[in-house]
Amino acid sequence: MTPIRQLTVIGMGLIGSSLAQALRAAGAVERVVAVGRGEATPRQAVALGVADEGSTDAAAAVAAADMVVIGVPLGAVRGVLDSIAEALPQDAVITDVGSVKGSVVADARAVFGELPPRFVPGHPVAGTERSGVGAGFAELFRGRRVILTPAAETDPDALERVRAMWAATGAETIEMDVAHHDRMLAATSHLPHLLAYGLVDTLGRWDASHEVFQYAAGGFRDFTRIASSDPVMWRDICLANREALLETLAHYREDLEALTRRVREGDGEGLAEVFARAKATRDEYRYVFEK
Amino acid sequence: MTPIRQLTVIGMGLIGSSLAQALRAAGAVERVVAVGRGEATPRQAVALGVADEGSTDAAAAVAAADMVVIGVPLGAVRGVLDSIAEALPQDAVITDVGSVKGSVVADARAVFGELPPRFVPGHPVAGTERSGVGAGFAELFRGRRVILTPAAETDPDALERVRAMWAATGAETIEMDVAHHDRMLAATSHLPHLLAYGLVDTLGRWDASHEVFQYAAGGFRDFTRIASSDPVMWRDICLANREALLETLAHYREDLEALTRRVREGDGEGLAEVFARAKATRDEYRYVFEK
Repeated sequence: MTPIRQLTVIGMGLIGSSLAQALRAAGAVERVVAVGRGEATPRQAVALGVADEGSTDAAAAVAAADMVVIGVPLGAVRGVLDSIAEALPQDAVITDVGSVKGSVVADARAVFGELPPRFVPGHPVAGTERSGVGAGFAELFRGRRVILTPAAETDPDALERVRAMWAATGAETIEMDVAHHDRMLAATSHLPHLLAYGLVDTLGRWDASHEVFQYAAGGFRDFTRIASSDPVMWRDICLANREALLETLAHYREDLEALTRRVREGDGEGLAEVFARAKATRDEYRYVFEK
Repeated sequence: MTPIRQLTVIGMGLIGSSLAQALRAAGAVERVVAVGRGEATPRQAVALGVADEGSTDAAAAVAAADMVVIGVPLGAVRGVLDSIAEALPQDAVITDVGSVKGSVVADARAVFGELPPRFVPGHPVAGTERSGVGAGFAELFRGRRVILTPAAETDPDALERVRAMWAATGAETIEMDVAHHDRMLAATSHLPHLLAYGLVDTLGRWDASHEVFQYAAGGFRDFTRIASSDPVMWRDICLANREALLETLAHYREDLEALTRRVREGDGEGLAEVFARAKATRDEYRYVFEK
């Protein structure tokens, strides 16, 4: 690919930091500018060598960019778009890394009156429970998928440039429509996070002395790792994807009620059936889960 | 410790196999006998060098044992105790590795009329989602906890021998009463397993093409690993610990209902509060979860 001349990352967290590092390592970017609301993160990005320049002025920082990546929590996307709308160069490509795509597209429409042809909504399906610029690493996206949700009006050249950017990080890009993405991610990512947060909180409040956490066996440890993810980011995801999340939550709660009934009635056959079916499904996709 | 002369393991799965291997590695056992319902597992145990001898006759296999470990699913414990009650030598120590202790004590009382003084109920809080004799490894218990639930009538010498056996595997033994153990484990292990099985099954049935499993991000992967645990073992655990599990399930479902309400009402502050509290609790116990 032709290297990106100036990548401006607005909201330099785990994802933005990893992206900048991966592109630098691949020689796919010449200059990185990190934008934060406060001075601390941009300064840290420069100190860590993740960015060449730090700024708190998003409009000024996009003026010379040919690629703009928005990495802020979903609740802050509209404000960021508002602040850069005037300053964004005609030919700059813009993309984002949000876990919900419907809300981002709605924000873009609200600010620009339409989804700008050079705005390619994106979602790298990668991450760890850590957050912040210091948690980033160049290999985060290797072998992972990045879902792009272009619209009919999306400029093919812009799409191609976003594809090439992610390819340079070692990720595979795929495309799907916005609503399908949001339903899929509600089920596989947003619901599990909600359940994990809920479980840790239930147990923490149930046992005020937290003795329970001393006896956490293998299963619980895995289960709760994701509960140390960034609360603000996840609050915004739950709100931005409310409809799809409520739909999958309704399915889950109904099934959990049935499972509870089986426990209450001592229905061993019914329990074993659910457990075996879940195990078979999970084992079938072992190759996905263990990569 | 004085080495165990003959360790007889009835039900040589992940735990029994790891125990035998750990004790052998520590020089803490002279001879291991593996008992299975069928011939396959005892034979495999001998072939793998985990046991010196295999048998399908539990009574015969305990006749010369000074330490008997029961590693069968909880629903099979009473039958095993029945089958060995007559043959068990007076001075042999007996223990088990079940994840529920109330049901094991009840089974022992049903078979022997009382909890025999040389029966020390135990539960190694360790495991992986894999199962079977071939999944065992000598290091499984290193740095882990083994909970023993002796009664007032438990012989101090028997207790000491079980303690020493686990110490030889690198585990730390602690003691608590049966009911406390069962409530604690319902919350930290049995409930999370039930939730994970439920989630994988819900998603598998919701999306018949299983497309969702292709996009499983970090959180979901962790969450579902435990859903590939042995269904029969977990069915038995859920039934054996029904009361405590239902109690903790009721708490969880109530909290999940409140969380759902917050999503529905768009209550960002309320969601962030729960998420932040869960994260704080989880981060406080990072040292437990990450060891």
